[in-house]
Amino acid sequence: MTQEQLTLDENLNKVGEGKKVEMSGEHSSQIKKIISAVKERNIQNIFFVACGGSMASLSFGEYFISKETNVPSYVFTSNEFIHRNPKGLNENSLVVVRSHSGNTPETVEAASFARGKGALTVAISLLVDSPLCKEAEYTMHYNYKDDSNAIDCEVGMFYTFIFELLQVLSPNEKYSRVLNQLSNLDELLAKNIKLFSIAGDEFGKKYKRENIIYTMASGAYIHHAYSFTSCLLMEMLWIHSNAIHSGEFFHGPFEITDYDVPFLVILGDGPSRPLDQRALDFVRKFSDKVEVVDIETLNYEGIDEDLKEYFGPALTGAVLRVYADGLAEHTGHPLSVRRYMWKMEY
Amino acid sequence: MTQEQLTLDENLNKVGEGKKVEMSGEHSSQIKKIISAVKERNIQNIFFVACGGSMASLSFGEYFISKETNVPSYVFTSNEFIHRNPKGLNENSLVVVRSHSGNTPETVEAASFARGKGALTVAISLLVDSPLCKEAEYTMHYNYKDDSNAIDCEVGMFYTFIFELLQVLSPNEKYSRVLNQLSNLDELLAKNIKLFSIAGDEFGKKYKRENIIYTMASGAYIHHAYSFTSCLLMEMLWIHSNAIHSGEFFHGPFEITDYDVPFLVILGDGPSRPLDQRALDFVRKFSDKVEVVDIETLNYEGIDEDLKEYFGPALTGAVLRVYADGLAEHTGHPLSVRRYMWKMEY
Repeated sequence: MTQEQLTLDENLNKVGEGKKVEMSGEHSSQIKKIISAVKERNIQNIFFVACGGSMASLSFGEYFISKETNVPSYVFTSNEFIHRNPKGLNENSLVVVRSHSGNTPETVEAASFARGKGALTVAISLLVDSPLCKEAEYTMHYNYKDDSNAIDCEVGMFYTFIFELLQVLSPNEKYSRVLNQLSNLDELLAKNIKLFSIAGDEFGKKYKRENIIYTMASGAYIHHAYSFTSCLLMEMLWIHSNAIHSGEFFHGPFEITDYDVPFLVILGDGPSRPLDQRALDFVRKFSDKVEVVDIETLNYEGIDEDLKEYFGPALTGAVLRVYADGLAEHTGHPLSVRRYMWKMEY
Repeated sequence: MTQEQLTLDENLNKVGEGKKVEMSGEHSSQIKKIISAVKERNIQNIFFVACGGSMASLSFGEYFISKETNVPSYVFTSNEFIHRNPKGLNENSLVVVRSHSGNTPETVEAASFARGKGALTVAISLLVDSPLCKEAEYTMHYNYKDDSNAIDCEVGMFYTFIFELLQVLSPNEKYSRVLNQLSNLDELLAKNIKLFSIAGDEFGKKYKRENIIYTMASGAYIHHAYSFTSCLLMEMLWIHSNAIHSGEFFHGPFEITDYDVPFLVILGDGPSRPLDQRALDFVRKFSDKVEVVDIETLNYEGIDEDLKEYFGPALTGAVLRVYADGLAEHTGHPLSVRRYMWKMEY
């Protein structure tokens, strides 16, 4: 039997094979239900809808689906989705919504809006009894900060879902191997956090006085740059920023480069790495403040060479967090501090 | 005969009816050829591919097409398009590429790449003998800074093309009226530039010392914010910036708001205006440096009430340029100055 012929059940059960790392029965059952529902419908397009960091996280789904299948897929910030009211949204749409708390009002409304259009709705959230999960037809909730294995947490569950979905949309033996090798995720996240801990601390020490730090990336990694810019630098650290696509850099933004303008460049491991390299070469020439996170230097133990481009994005969020921790440490500004969020009505 | 029944020829000839403003025969013939080619193919998706300001300009096409038809449409920066190699790109795709000079290497390569996949390729450029136009199957070139009527220039020709395309994809009598009323474009651009000239000058005077100015918008206007941020503030004025979607603002970026952080908010006239209003209300409360460009206050003489949401985006680029001119005037930094672009290999 080839990998391609494995059924969904077998794939889910294979997670962690030989390493005794398996997704919890409750979690894998949720994903199975969603995938069954997808198979029962004639899904013609996919909308990933959320806000901020949740939107960025969903964007990896759109990236791989547009790259590997011909099913149209789109990313929308929740309110834009509702107001745009895309004509392609109908009973043949799959709409994936996401909010950690499950309370984000715009995303709850987007779920309700999509369901009203007859779309198949899937909510991803920490809490299964959150308003978002109540609004959606199917739910996927994950564990968080409770010592669970990563396969039962945000990244593990989302990647399992996306690669099960890819397997339905455009079957490929590679996706079975990804699903299988996700059992390494927990260990790899821990190893990579450790691997980048000194660099993250040095980054914090060097950049603690900066009031602006640009991020730059391409391919799947532009979504990590967006999260780092919006949620870590701007929201949590009050540092000005802009996530620049390295392919767009030379078409405007690069004119702000100067010896004292800081850039954090993610040198991706996907097909658009040459774009990042070109932008990196330029900023290294004209700025004294360039930090690079080279995704090729990550620890990928247990991951097949041809699957690294799928695992890189799954590991990078945790690596970048280390750089934010470095800034928090050296600026004395904890990542938990807010001045508006959760403190007032807006 | 209703407007819906007008043929393409009649629509094109009706431009400027009663006002004697007609697109030049050569230009309307180019658009007719493209539209005929679209009709001959079974177009199943549309890719808008360019870099920087050209990409932002094409994005208005994607905005209206996704809002008003169920034909999947996408915007890509040229290099990302090539490296992503979206699976949906094939002989049933329409790929619209754009570069003012027609020399942008990534976009020329994107045209060649798309043509290699069998897609119907259309190049938009100033020069019909540019490399980009040579690479594409169909071309649309426009007049520029030669006292031509706006109907023969970038905005007039692009909007004519997009609304002719919409008429093919999802016929609606509204589009005939848009095409007809585009004859007012020239006059409206001039009137709106005049209308905002004092505000633009005041903006320049007030913000000339700022080293960072955020822009904010939603709906179609996010693309104007992107252009203003990337091409006018960062490229031409060397002012740090980030174009924030007003629906994303409260999910991270708003934490950088402070009394001395400047925001230029585009208060759109489309369905997502409430998002802009909410973000504007917030920054007005916590920043002393807020400038608003209210698209509802534009001069729309000769435009039907229900067509304003189509014309707003067509007029806003010229209005925002006035604000950049104000900054150029008061900073003594002409918009033509560059330190890297056109000066070196990179």
